[in-house]
Amino acid sequence: MTRPGAGMAADIDEQPAGYERLLSTGHAAAIAEVAAVVARRRPRHVVFTARGTSDHAALYAAYLTEIRLGLPAGLASPSAITVFGARPDLSDALVVGVSQSGGSPDLAEVLRVARASGALTLAVTNNPGSPLVETAELSVDIAAGHERAVAATKTYTAELLALLMLIEGVRAGDGVLPAQEHAALSRLPELAAQTLADDTPARLAPRYRFAAQLVTTGRGYAYPTAREAALKLMETSYLPALAFSGADLLHGPLAMTDPDVPVLAVVGSGPGGTSMREVLPRLGERRADVVVVGSAEVGETRMAVPEVDERYAPLLDILPLQRLALALALARGEDPDAPRGLKKVTATM
Amino acid sequence: MTRPGAGMAADIDEQPAGYERLLSTGHAAAIAEVAAVVARRRPRHVVFTARGTSDHAALYAAYLTEIRLGLPAGLASPSAITVFGARPDLSDALVVGVSQSGGSPDLAEVLRVARASGALTLAVTNNPGSPLVETAELSVDIAAGHERAVAATKTYTAELLALLMLIEGVRAGDGVLPAQEHAALSRLPELAAQTLADDTPARLAPRYRFAAQLVTTGRGYAYPTAREAALKLMETSYLPALAFSGADLLHGPLAMTDPDVPVLAVVGSGPGGTSMREVLPRLGERRADVVVVGSAEVGETRMAVPEVDERYAPLLDILPLQRLALALALARGEDPDAPRGLKKVTATM
Repeated sequence: MTRPGAGMAADIDEQPAGYERLLSTGHAAAIAEVAAVVARRRPRHVVFTARGTSDHAALYAAYLTEIRLGLPAGLASPSAITVFGARPDLSDALVVGVSQSGGSPDLAEVLRVARASGALTLAVTNNPGSPLVETAELSVDIAAGHERAVAATKTYTAELLALLMLIEGVRAGDGVLPAQEHAALSRLPELAAQTLADDTPARLAPRYRFAAQLVTTGRGYAYPTAREAALKLMETSYLPALAFSGADLLHGPLAMTDPDVPVLAVVGSGPGGTSMREVLPRLGERRADVVVVGSAEVGETRMAVPEVDERYAPLLDILPLQRLALALALARGEDPDAPRGLKKVTATM
Repeated sequence: MTRPGAGMAADIDEQPAGYERLLSTGHAAAIAEVAAVVARRRPRHVVFTARGTSDHAALYAAYLTEIRLGLPAGLASPSAITVFGARPDLSDALVVGVSQSGGSPDLAEVLRVARASGALTLAVTNNPGSPLVETAELSVDIAAGHERAVAATKTYTAELLALLMLIEGVRAGDGVLPAQEHAALSRLPELAAQTLADDTPARLAPRYRFAAQLVTTGRGYAYPTAREAALKLMETSYLPALAFSGADLLHGPLAMTDPDVPVLAVVGSGPGGTSMREVLPRLGERRADVVVVGSAEVGETRMAVPEVDERYAPLLDILPLQRLALALALARGEDPDAPRGLKKVTATM
């Protein structure tokens, strides 16, 4: 019998090595090759399909696609195709299925239908032998290795980095990352290790021991981080955690926040972080208990993360949030390695 | 000083009349004219942009677009354009802004950028003189009249019906609803009145008086209903309400449900309802407290809704949920007409 949470802790700690591995020559070349094919085929728009944690990686990739490639991007609800029999004409599209297991039949079915309608299809998974990879024309291996815990951590960040490398490769045209981009990415393993060495999450966890609920928020690139942090807290601590984009929070749910509702606000240093700064005073008016996560030097309580281009921030900002979820689950007497009612591969149609 | 919740109650009660009005010759003809233009311009895909309640109407419209028109559809995050300066090439797209006030500058900015890139743009609002309407090439007036409460109810269902009429009009080609479709829609005012006459929501509300949180779930067309119900409960009762698609619920957050977590499951009679039936036993295993909303005759506790084609069900299923939110807010001593920290028109960029 291992210590509760030992698996999730080990997964979390492996993330700097995971970044290193994906950036290594072999894996980078494989991603560049796929990126070059995508660039050559010139899709007119990009559709992502994913579930759970991978859906948040897909959301990050959708922002990247719109901002960095100037292509419209959206997340498809599999049920339109798998349950209602929709057969959208996807012949102009790149359709990307993101899934750590590659095993959910609904995503494979979306890719099958997309491919039949003429779409370029791509599977991004941690399992090169999975049905999703077999269904897709192209595939990217996120190479994160075996994940011990049911709650995904290292596969999430490996999906983020693989999608980032892919999209920047498409932007370059030949799939190969420009030298400056490569140099910036090469710093990530070290910065991730530095972020994980900071013990603030473990110190903050007891603060939430008796919280009845939690709100997470972020904008743009930071919104997937807020969503993923909320899911991690729900999966491991069974704490209802509501994620809102900073803008959506102001459009209604702000009413819910009060001094008893802890808010985790992801605030970076770029335009997304700047736009979050209008949200913080509104939370202050409601006397919400706010902890700021990220590189922005605002707020009284912070989980600080090294400053990087906002585009890379999701690869670092999630790390203290994963550690917070782990520490909080342990503080609440739960074993995050064996969450109740949850399986590693979930088959839905 | 009026009775707390009197405004929201009046808004809710006006919904059958709102359906009647939109279906009347003048409004139907105006929507048909816009639908005919859209059909003629043959967009290759559809992008919706909206916030808050209107985002759920947009999600419903995205399902309709994929299933009924066979066109890829997605929801755009305004921040990619407004905060990060993305300039996606939308020349193949129909870009639809949905907003009751038409006043949020970020949506107008998305439509402005989309129009400049060659997109066909359409504003769906309750305010024909709004900036969103001025920015868009086409517009649809949802004609819901003045909404008294801050929490949107009758503007939500008017958006649903206007988008449904528009999309079915595009499907018809000339914008005019086929006779059978028109006949089915003509029954909605009467069915909505019948749904609102059922007092189950008021009887169920005390059950949730001391609930600390709530989960809503649905699949396909019913998922926007689950999302909107959760938002209504958050806005009026300050109760953290988490909405999940039935499939996503099984991919993680199921762990959170236990006998102390009430679940509102929207289950209709078509394929979406059928696929939800695999979710209900899983909730049963976790001994969750489940109330089924919709026409499916399953579960011990139900808020029954007359059976209609699943495509129309969102126009009825939300009604008892709005009433539940209202009754619960009152039971908790809140005034849903004056929610704390919330404004009718929220300006975000």
